[in-house]
Amino acid sequence: MSFETKATIASFGGKLLKLSHQSSSTGTPMNVNLYLPPAALQGSTKVPVLIYLSGLTCTPDNCSEKGFFQAHAARRGLALVYPDTSPRGADIAGETESWDFGVGAGFYVDATAEPWKKNYRMETYVSSELPEALFSSAEFGDKLDSERVSITGHSMGGHGALTLYLKNPGKYRSVSAFAPIANPVNCPWGQKAFSGYLGAEDKEAWKKHDATELVKGWKGGDLKALVDVGTGDNFYKQGQLLPENFEKAVKEAGVQGLELRYQPDYDHSYFFMASFAEDHVDHAAKYLFA
Amino acid sequence: MSFETKATIASFGGKLLKLSHQSSSTGTPMNVNLYLPPAALQGSTKVPVLIYLSGLTCTPDNCSEKGFFQAHAARRGLALVYPDTSPRGADIAGETESWDFGVGAGFYVDATAEPWKKNYRMETYVSSELPEALFSSAEFGDKLDSERVSITGHSMGGHGALTLYLKNPGKYRSVSAFAPIANPVNCPWGQKAFSGYLGAEDKEAWKKHDATELVKGWKGGDLKALVDVGTGDNFYKQGQLLPENFEKAVKEAGVQGLELRYQPDYDHSYFFMASFAEDHVDHAAKYLFA
Repeated sequence: MSFETKATIASFGGKLLKLSHQSSSTGTPMNVNLYLPPAALQGSTKVPVLIYLSGLTCTPDNCSEKGFFQAHAARRGLALVYPDTSPRGADIAGETESWDFGVGAGFYVDATAEPWKKNYRMETYVSSELPEALFSSAEFGDKLDSERVSITGHSMGGHGALTLYLKNPGKYRSVSAFAPIANPVNCPWGQKAFSGYLGAEDKEAWKKHDATELVKGWKGGDLKALVDVGTGDNFYKQGQLLPENFEKAVKEAGVQGLELRYQPDYDHSYFFMASFAEDHVDHAAKYLFA
Repeated sequence: MSFETKATIASFGGKLLKLSHQSSSTGTPMNVNLYLPPAALQGSTKVPVLIYLSGLTCTPDNCSEKGFFQAHAARRGLALVYPDTSPRGADIAGETESWDFGVGAGFYVDATAEPWKKNYRMETYVSSELPEALFSSAEFGDKLDSERVSITGHSMGGHGALTLYLKNPGKYRSVSAFAPIANPVNCPWGQKAFSGYLGAEDKEAWKKHDATELVKGWKGGDLKALVDVGTGDNFYKQGQLLPENFEKAVKEAGVQGLELRYQPDYDHSYFFMASFAEDHVDHAAKYLFA
């Protein structure tokens, strides 16, 4: 599973690598961006890793260009991994018809329904295949510490970060999210995606990919979770995000360690993320360097 | 000359305003982005202004999204003004045929040749009309200090920043540039643009829009100029930028105050600018708050 390096770009003293590799999970080539901070280029010390999961429609490039994470990852000595949001080129009928389902909208689940289940396996890809491929890479493996990984994400990627964190206690040192789809079984985006990928009938299966449901059974101790939501976010206002439901479930489960912040006037865009990227990188660094 | 506010976006504690107004210089509507830092939203103190001139093909949005000037302008208490790079909608035959001439490529000159001279008057627009409209605006005028203005820019916009600074001693407190087209009369981009806008014959007129030529007659004291060029910049390698010619002219004129830095491996992109935006905002702030 070797990577092809399509571009190497100087950024904040480090290198942003635009990579591509053949994925056994999705059966397609997958693009991924990897940011190596100056600390990873200098000595032989392995740096910890923060995985950033993007939102609907995004590629690895959007947050690499607009999120401002590299500035802070450089300062703190973290690597950043920006996976894609779905397979591309699986050539499934209808996969490009919607912006919120199919291409660009894999929702970080392993599909169980036809015709998606062969290729739309983003949960396995993001939580296992991709990090293992990076950590075992002849080119990057000696720069990345597989024992120190945190996860973050935006919108659909915030859902991905929270659910992968909650499903895999101990796998990630911390989690954070910007405007996450925090209760997808109860919002239109999530219902559409889960109906398609997991089947319309099996609602119990849906709950295994819902942060608000998953946290009810969380046994991993303090959450170590930072979540930001903008009060000017139209998707929040429309009930696509439902952070209140997640917060209520956390409280009712008696779980500690969720810091949920409502940021006045901020919208759903990269302007919002860029403004708080520093806090999220620092949140991850606090646990990655603990 | 009132502005229409098309969007108000929270960014780093301040507000990014996407504005449009009718320009008498260009005879077209012009888009411009204005970033008001937190300091401008809070008290009644006027904040200084840094004008950022974009490169070929760009709109006011590119640097607003990817340049990360807002992070540092927020911290230092500067407003940012992002003008467009040409008129749009002048409806001149051929104006959209090239990416390096016409729409998106006004080169910050007042055209003197037909058919451009009626609309392509970006020098007057950027150096006079736009700032005057902002400073006299009922909505923003009381937040912006017309006495404290600096200028910066990228590529074609670096050319714009340097030439407007050199042509108007005292108008700007400082200047900086990323990968500027520093000697346009001697590079393909500049020769194409000046032939079109100023006429192919009048080479003396070209020199009035060339930083390397203008600095030979500079009488404004120390330059207060910061210039960054990436050594991995393909346009630099191709001889479009020619910063060495500018540096040589500065030295031969006995002018002090140019800090020209070559940044190893950096390219011509916003990744380069984002990486050094902090230095350029701090450079401007040093003089704006002196």
